[in-house]
Amino acid sequence: MLLEALYHVPRDKWAYAYNPTTIHLRVRTKRDDIEQVFAMTGDKYDWQRTYQELAMEKAAHDAMFDYWEIAVKPKYKRLSYAFKLVAGSETVYMQDSGIGHEPPTPPGELYEFPYIHEIDVFKVPEWAKEAVFYQIMPERFANGDPSNDPKPTEPWGGTPKIDNFFGGDLQGVLDHLDDLVDLGINAIYFTPLFTSPSNHKYDTVDYKNVDPHFGDNALLKRLVAACHDKGIRVVLDAVFNHCSEQFPPFQDVLKHGQDSKYIDWFHINEFPVSIKNGIPTYDTFGFFGNMPKFNTANPEVKEYLLGVAEYWIKEINLDGWRLDVANEIDHHFWRDFRKVVKAANPDAYIIGEVWSDSLNWLLGDQFDSVMNYPFADKVLTFFNGGMDGYSFSNEMGSLIMRYPQQTNEVIFNMLCSHDTPRLLTSVGHDKRKLKLCVVFLFTYMGTPCIFYGDEVGISGNGDPDCRKCMVWDPHKQDRELYDFYKLMIALRKKHAALRQGRFRFLHADIHDPCIIYERLDDKVHFTIWMNNTGKKRTLSHPMDTNDWYDALTGERVMPDKGIMNISLDPFGYRILCRMLN
Amino acid sequence: MLLEALYHVPRDKWAYAYNPTTIHLRVRTKRDDIEQVFAMTGDKYDWQRTYQELAMEKAAHDAMFDYWEIAVKPKYKRLSYAFKLVAGSETVYMQDSGIGHEPPTPPGELYEFPYIHEIDVFKVPEWAKEAVFYQIMPERFANGDPSNDPKPTEPWGGTPKIDNFFGGDLQGVLDHLDDLVDLGINAIYFTPLFTSPSNHKYDTVDYKNVDPHFGDNALLKRLVAACHDKGIRVVLDAVFNHCSEQFPPFQDVLKHGQDSKYIDWFHINEFPVSIKNGIPTYDTFGFFGNMPKFNTANPEVKEYLLGVAEYWIKEINLDGWRLDVANEIDHHFWRDFRKVVKAANPDAYIIGEVWSDSLNWLLGDQFDSVMNYPFADKVLTFFNGGMDGYSFSNEMGSLIMRYPQQTNEVIFNMLCSHDTPRLLTSVGHDKRKLKLCVVFLFTYMGTPCIFYGDEVGISGNGDPDCRKCMVWDPHKQDRELYDFYKLMIALRKKHAALRQGRFRFLHADIHDPCIIYERLDDKVHFTIWMNNTGKKRTLSHPMDTNDWYDALTGERVMPDKGIMNISLDPFGYRILCRMLN
Repeated sequence: MLLEALYHVPRDKWAYAYNPTTIHLRVRTKRDDIEQVFAMTGDKYDWQRTYQELAMEKAAHDAMFDYWEIAVKPKYKRLSYAFKLVAGSETVYMQDSGIGHEPPTPPGELYEFPYIHEIDVFKVPEWAKEAVFYQIMPERFANGDPSNDPKPTEPWGGTPKIDNFFGGDLQGVLDHLDDLVDLGINAIYFTPLFTSPSNHKYDTVDYKNVDPHFGDNALLKRLVAACHDKGIRVVLDAVFNHCSEQFPPFQDVLKHGQDSKYIDWFHINEFPVSIKNGIPTYDTFGFFGNMPKFNTANPEVKEYLLGVAEYWIKEINLDGWRLDVANEIDHHFWRDFRKVVKAANPDAYIIGEVWSDSLNWLLGDQFDSVMNYPFADKVLTFFNGGMDGYSFSNEMGSLIMRYPQQTNEVIFNMLCSHDTPRLLTSVGHDKRKLKLCVVFLFTYMGTPCIFYGDEVGISGNGDPDCRKCMVWDPHKQDRELYDFYKLMIALRKKHAALRQGRFRFLHADIHDPCIIYERLDDKVHFTIWMNNTGKKRTLSHPMDTNDWYDALTGERVMPDKGIMNISLDPFGYRILCRMLN
Repeated sequence: MLLEALYHVPRDKWAYAYNPTTIHLRVRTKRDDIEQVFAMTGDKYDWQRTYQELAMEKAAHDAMFDYWEIAVKPKYKRLSYAFKLVAGSETVYMQDSGIGHEPPTPPGELYEFPYIHEIDVFKVPEWAKEAVFYQIMPERFANGDPSNDPKPTEPWGGTPKIDNFFGGDLQGVLDHLDDLVDLGINAIYFTPLFTSPSNHKYDTVDYKNVDPHFGDNALLKRLVAACHDKGIRVVLDAVFNHCSEQFPPFQDVLKHGQDSKYIDWFHINEFPVSIKNGIPTYDTFGFFGNMPKFNTANPEVKEYLLGVAEYWIKEINLDGWRLDVANEIDHHFWRDFRKVVKAANPDAYIIGEVWSDSLNWLLGDQFDSVMNYPFADKVLTFFNGGMDGYSFSNEMGSLIMRYPQQTNEVIFNMLCSHDTPRLLTSVGHDKRKLKLCVVFLFTYMGTPCIFYGDEVGISGNGDPDCRKCMVWDPHKQDRELYDFYKLMIALRKKHAALRQGRFRFLHADIHDPCIIYERLDDKVHFTIWMNNTGKKRTLSHPMDTNDWYDALTGERVMPDKGIMNISLDPFGYRILCRMLN
């Protein structure tokens, strides 16, 4: 047994309350090194009478490790525990005092989950588990009201540049709500809406007003109400790391220097406030002088920004916030943000923009979810031929084990955004590959999100090229692609198994880019077959029942002598399912 | 290189801000597996110009792993980083996206410490780094005022039982302050003082009043003022997990049942409130029906208890709180506790009672320190012959690497307490072994604490035997032992190197119970030599200077041809030092 590979700590994703009566424990071992892992559990104040030895399940693996998991329901909310690992004749024990071959002498030196406090339990909104998101950048979605166009506004469909405008607005979104209903989405994430000089509006001047080029507050309220009428939730973008240099308090600092009463609203490192050799004398987003960073530790700033967060929730019945540059803001701020936001709307969904490991914000006291860029990265690499099925299954296992289950259930999965190349471009304009990515997105765990226009075939490189105008002319839309998206969304929405069911790879081998995986709950069992090569391929897997059919066509699909053989076109896929009871 | 042994996560003790300009990074590798580790660091928004490759130092080891550490000062408060590990011709890279042999392509996929926020930096009180604590259980320390004795009060020095009284009180402490000054301690930790029916007073009835058997609030105020006059800090015991069943709100619950307005102050699982088959129908400390557990998530309870915490700080200029059963109270409570306490006294020292891994509370937002029972456990095991020097050095390394440096600087190290057997008893009444333990305590990192009376030779098994009356008759005191404690305290107080200096084992070998270790800062270099066997022993170690002398006797001690040979009696020790510049 490789002892150096063993890992557990009595906290964060390794030991957490899943709900007020259940604790999840995880243990890491070297891959394929260990046959059985048991959790030795009990209440430290009454160990003998509460002791239970529980077999753990292998929940995931990555390239180097297996991850074992169990849900424990302690009788008195308190849990002391150790682990017993068995490989052949060798038995190893893991406990708080160390790893060794001697069994623990409970209840001393055990790991502890001292008491499940409901207030500390990480709760995520149920609706986010059911959601299919659609990300809209309003300036580029639809121009519903030419009277509010910025000057100059370029003709719809022109080339996006860092600083040009095409006149999209909230009326445009309102006008096209039925199109979104037709597509099937049930949640929208809007990039920023508030007054700002830029087309992306990530440099806010007025946090309490909709940008006049987009409409006004009353229109936003009508739009959200219309969304709610149609069963669509709405999440806005909270840009609280920094503001626009035109934000009045920063203007005050520029004007009055050290005498400004807003000095402590920002991080001023040197006076005069200026840009020296390309580096601002104040902290900024990146090194952009036009985006001064807030001092979110200043109680005035905090009160102001949390007031903004609360204001919009109450004013328009907002369903959640996506947090821009979330990892560069302090944890005290986010803890209080969660309290304010969840008090205003207990069902609010909080998604951080963090590109790297985000566990620090996903322990129940800050965010519900993060934008899952690592997911996009791995999926695109795999379907572009950059790794085999074996590596892909390892990478997915690694991502699952990054976070507690609550986050995995609502992690914000997307394949591109306003900050990355478009999906179609990322797969080299190969629609077959695009579809594999999208099938995977919609049959995987987490909360999927489509970037506006991906469903009609918009392509584009990174910012600003990915921010093209939405294509509304049906003749210029890829309607076949649209119907495919619509079908996948409908399939996901129809089957809880695709949203909440267990996920497992059935086939993910070394040197083989093809995969088979399953998702199942107590109602439906899905198997998804993917030929991730440019040649025809037949994938085979043992199947011991004869009740499979094609989830998209309804066609019966029979195994042959207990082996299911599925012939697939190059970059083809098939989704099979069978009903359970 | 054993890849499975590598460990780093961009958070908690592995990556933390030590102060507003410094980030500490740690990496774990298999022991003796790797020659060099480098931190590849920079600002992700300007990687090329800020990139630095920094060599890390081996800071500690345990049985299986080496731990590498570095302090990084990022230019713009933001740090992206990866690690480069070198062993022979093999080079391995660790980054957020995984471990591999390919160098990273910065700044993508790196680990991130996104921004140092001063408000998130873990700050501990400076005075606690200088403190030598003395733990007093007032009922057993000195009876200064027989007029407030409980009835019945047994004669001083009788056999302690679970529920008997000897009449100790605050006047007794006041009367003996000069004795404590003589001993040299500069901080007192009092077990609970507030009104309670028990002798230990861990079941509080009135949180705002000193128990009448101990005195009154005015006397406590005078006592703390007298302590402060003599340079002694005072820490009280906060028993916020549970109260006495006689606590008025719980009495109200007992009286009015479901109609009590205090129902939500506790965790009532079933009515009537009672004890069924030995198990209370409400949550308690352990299963003790007379100690009902508070519902600290209830804002009324929280306001009440935080009010208590603040009240005593302001009322008597309290220097800190020791938190009873700290791990069974929710994290929201402790986060707000820290805010309230540090607002009332920024120098307050917060010590949690947590017996197992406590990192969850030691990330800057909750406690400063914990009672270091694992330290006591390992030290006692070692000096009782239960492990060799090699294992001891591993165990100490493992404990150091449990927590960030801030906590290590003020972790509350003791060798026994009111909850364990007395030190003298733990070492089988062998004073020589006791002294080795005490020398180690006073020459090690952290904040040492003596349990009252250990210094005059009080023995005792676990509770209640460890809670004997203090011995004041000089003829019954072990004055030789007292002088030894006094000497050790004075030595520690004299030399910052013994409080804050670098610690390192120089000799800690397999099958050898003897150890040599050093502590040094830029002023003094100590080496401590310990013969942890029952036979005479000469320990040898290379020493390339001739300026060593005995720190206790002043005697010069010369190496022989570059080798220092120190002859030691059975269970003997010697402390050498030399002045640096």
